[in-house]
Amino acid sequence: MLEKYINAASQREKADLVLKNAQFVNVFNGQIEFGDIAIVGEKIVGVGKYEGKEEIDVNGLTVLPGYIDAHVHIESSQLSPEEFASLIVPRGTTTIIADPHEITNVCGMAGAEYIAKASKNVPLDVKVQLPSCVPATPFETSGATLYGKDIEENINNDYIFGLGEFMNFPGVIYSDADVIKKLEAAHGANKVIDGHAPSVSGESLNAYLCGGIVTDHECVSVDEINEKIAKGVYVHLRHGSSTRNLVSNSTAVNASNMRRFIMCTDDRHAADLKEKGHLDDALRTAVAGGLNPIWAVTIATLNAAECYGLRFRGAIAPFYLADIVVVDNLKNFNAQFVIKNGKLVAKQGKPLFDTAKRYLPNEVLNTVHVNDLKAEDFVLTLKGKKANVMTILPGNVVTGCEVMEIESKDGDVQIEGTDVLKLSVVERHKYTGNIGKALLKGYGFKGGAMGITIAHDSHNIILLGDDNDSMAKAANALKQIGGGMVIVDKKEQKIYTLTLDIGGLMSSRDAESLQRDSKALIERAYGMGVDRNQEAFMSLAFLSLAVIPQVKILDTGLFDVTKFAFMDINAD
Amino acid sequence: MLEKYINAASQREKADLVLKNAQFVNVFNGQIEFGDIAIVGEKIVGVGKYEGKEEIDVNGLTVLPGYIDAHVHIESSQLSPEEFASLIVPRGTTTIIADPHEITNVCGMAGAEYIAKASKNVPLDVKVQLPSCVPATPFETSGATLYGKDIEENINNDYIFGLGEFMNFPGVIYSDADVIKKLEAAHGANKVIDGHAPSVSGESLNAYLCGGIVTDHECVSVDEINEKIAKGVYVHLRHGSSTRNLVSNSTAVNASNMRRFIMCTDDRHAADLKEKGHLDDALRTAVAGGLNPIWAVTIATLNAAECYGLRFRGAIAPFYLADIVVVDNLKNFNAQFVIKNGKLVAKQGKPLFDTAKRYLPNEVLNTVHVNDLKAEDFVLTLKGKKANVMTILPGNVVTGCEVMEIESKDGDVQIEGTDVLKLSVVERHKYTGNIGKALLKGYGFKGGAMGITIAHDSHNIILLGDDNDSMAKAANALKQIGGGMVIVDKKEQKIYTLTLDIGGLMSSRDAESLQRDSKALIERAYGMGVDRNQEAFMSLAFLSLAVIPQVKILDTGLFDVTKFAFMDINAD
Repeated sequence: MLEKYINAASQREKADLVLKNAQFVNVFNGQIEFGDIAIVGEKIVGVGKYEGKEEIDVNGLTVLPGYIDAHVHIESSQLSPEEFASLIVPRGTTTIIADPHEITNVCGMAGAEYIAKASKNVPLDVKVQLPSCVPATPFETSGATLYGKDIEENINNDYIFGLGEFMNFPGVIYSDADVIKKLEAAHGANKVIDGHAPSVSGESLNAYLCGGIVTDHECVSVDEINEKIAKGVYVHLRHGSSTRNLVSNSTAVNASNMRRFIMCTDDRHAADLKEKGHLDDALRTAVAGGLNPIWAVTIATLNAAECYGLRFRGAIAPFYLADIVVVDNLKNFNAQFVIKNGKLVAKQGKPLFDTAKRYLPNEVLNTVHVNDLKAEDFVLTLKGKKANVMTILPGNVVTGCEVMEIESKDGDVQIEGTDVLKLSVVERHKYTGNIGKALLKGYGFKGGAMGITIAHDSHNIILLGDDNDSMAKAANALKQIGGGMVIVDKKEQKIYTLTLDIGGLMSSRDAESLQRDSKALIERAYGMGVDRNQEAFMSLAFLSLAVIPQVKILDTGLFDVTKFAFMDINAD
Repeated sequence: MLEKYINAASQREKADLVLKNAQFVNVFNGQIEFGDIAIVGEKIVGVGKYEGKEEIDVNGLTVLPGYIDAHVHIESSQLSPEEFASLIVPRGTTTIIADPHEITNVCGMAGAEYIAKASKNVPLDVKVQLPSCVPATPFETSGATLYGKDIEENINNDYIFGLGEFMNFPGVIYSDADVIKKLEAAHGANKVIDGHAPSVSGESLNAYLCGGIVTDHECVSVDEINEKIAKGVYVHLRHGSSTRNLVSNSTAVNASNMRRFIMCTDDRHAADLKEKGHLDDALRTAVAGGLNPIWAVTIATLNAAECYGLRFRGAIAPFYLADIVVVDNLKNFNAQFVIKNGKLVAKQGKPLFDTAKRYLPNEVLNTVHVNDLKAEDFVLTLKGKKANVMTILPGNVVTGCEVMEIESKDGDVQIEGTDVLKLSVVERHKYTGNIGKALLKGYGFKGGAMGITIAHDSHNIILLGDDNDSMAKAANALKQIGGGMVIVDKKEQKIYTLTLDIGGLMSSRDAESLQRDSKALIERAYGMGVDRNQEAFMSLAFLSLAVIPQVKILDTGLFDVTKFAFMDINAD
């Protein structure tokens, strides 16, 4: 191909495609420049005076390199990689560093492989990081466990790009032997290791970084950013649905450290992708918040390419990959045309590619492995009258704990007429029969049960309700549909479900119909009293995430994250 | 090792070495920062409060990452890699990207392998680029030829880092088939390709860069730099002995494009290394010329590491290679301590390592393959009275051409009493008997002959003189010593030589005695009339470099570089 590129660059042959009269952002010098952008095959061959077999006049528009999302869990969208691509590529994202942490917790390496291979059928480069911390803690039952030896065995798989966010930061700092084995395996393979080190600083941060970890997306203050940048970390500006630090973190960007920032969404729900956007929304939001637009573009393109060693990507220059987005302007970032590997793949926000599911192996389907449940399974017997009750800060994934007086009758707690609900995690990977039981205050649901097979990070069934029978029905319904979301309305005697057939996390359906049905179910949950400050189902899914303070519920019981130990529900 | 790094970083164990009370340049944020720099094994493990088994108090000094020379021909120093290291490491350079173009022209791959393997015995990382253009032109006789198939065969050798400067820019721009093969081989191996594209611009530059070439050290104007930076090229600030653009090119550096500059010496003579320095001198000179010292340091460290994909190098941060130079200040850059791979290797400008030649294979010795020459071999017969005479701009490697009336007698030109000398290139690799003959005006030598086995780029014997017999004696003396430099003083009937036993280019002797003897011989040449605006021998060595305008002499004859064709010495 080199010969073709050179012949077109030197004007001896016509280019395949030329963006005529382009005004573009040059990320190498921070300038706006002008010219015809010539493309041959998958490469940009030059900017100058060019003619093409095809031409698009982009006069009046602004041309940018395709965006690179430096850290994202596709699973958070509840969409297949193909449908995910159909939402983000038309927004201008052409490369993502994807960490299939969720589906790997359910399906093991088959999950990671699925994400990588399904993505091959859409015009989006999905660089798959091998999840480093499966499960997130050793205290719960997940669908798979990746030990050091598993990382060694899989890090050189052809579909693996690097090692995913190393959430087990205490394991690094205290040099746990199996953690070291994982890190050494990644270094041996010369792979980039992503980080996750919330509030880790000083000598502890030095220790963490001595694992050879190069990124962090958990910064929440300028001081934290400044320390991490100084220590060589690439810091993400994050624009997720649940987790956002984009605008506040942008205030730390300056001319001297700009090259050390990258941009990511981490988790982004389908509704946000559809209605607000992806990195286009991050750029829009950051620039509206005061970030220099040229810097914002550079952070979302060249910087990520450099961080991850993606040579000849993230810029508009000869021999660079022809991943290009044409936007209206550097304020609104509305994508008009998107070019991936030199081909026009989206126009006016609409994908020009199909999302047929050409790769959907059995290993990621039918993943709800649980015996039928009965009402009695949800009986919660206290020893006395006082219980440790989980509390939730509305709109936040951090939980608290409150000692409350709870009535009991016939060996079961009586919660009718209170703002307390039963909360259970039913193990669903290995038929263990484990059911973790807790009480939750402040969620606001009444009249039955609701549940979901997304429950971070082991993704057991998480259920809440005020009626044992409804909770059993909810669990059984989730089993029947092979994973997803459920509401049992006791009064109406009706069960409403939404199927997430891929690992119980994602749907193989098209984004639009899935989202319509998902919205309806969410609205039903609010209708049954869920506090609108919560995300009806997704806030539920975080109540089992044992790496976020303070008290969480696992299939194995109530867990105190601050002590990293189980706790008794009985408080007397 | 990760465990050791982590344990020391987290203060559970003592570090191996700590630079106490360090003030250091943080290249990630452009700040001066403070702390104890802890080192374990070959890595920096952190900056903070640390204790070490060994400690060096660097209070009052300034600590920098070890410098990276992004492009250098070791051969230009006429020193072995070991001796070269003994001069540059104590100045603060800890990594070089070395292009063994010269010795490979003489010895083929054995030359490149020699540079790589000899370097293993000194504390300097020598990343060896596979010379891409051997010989530089197809018009002359070199010791070796590397075709596309040879590049394919050798690019993945364990001692090869990337592909060396692609001097044959017309070959790229016109997509010569064998050139394409070389470039494709390097891309197939995912190697960085260095560039060399003087004054190439516009669509031609686009075409050249479509070869996937990423650097350029030939820029001579801010406009040229700006265009190359805009097109994604890493541009060198060069501080060679013959070729310098450091201060003028530094004026193109600004906050937005700074990350795209790197620093190199390209060619640097032993005398300059000894008396002025290496990249320390480049930094000193650039800063004196107005370049921001933090930028200068960043350009000489992190930027080069990024350009060449040298991860965890070029900064003072956890997990970065402990390549460190401690200088007096950011004005003088006098190196007080140099640490390479965590070990103190130089102190107060003196190396703490030996330079024993533990690897010196026969393949790079005895490389003057020429039959004995006689005075008659240097007879130069003109057809008429007018000749095309080479001229030389003092202190410049560019030559000119002038038509002059030249007297002849007995079929040989008569140059006595004129400022014209005979100039010959004697092929010395393959006993071809080729002797290229020319006339040179303005060099200033009288009374015999002088010659050298360094003659860019094929390194045949280049001789000048005003007496045929002296010229023959000079050639024979070079044969006898196995390569080097010679002066034949006809009046004194004496022959003075300096041996360069390694490829006829470099000496296996110690730097100090070599340099003393070299200086004496150079002084003798000036004593015999060589214009002091020339470098007595090295200006001679460039008179055969057929990629630099305008007229050059090859073993195959007089060559017009502008027409890329041979020319007749006869001008009537």
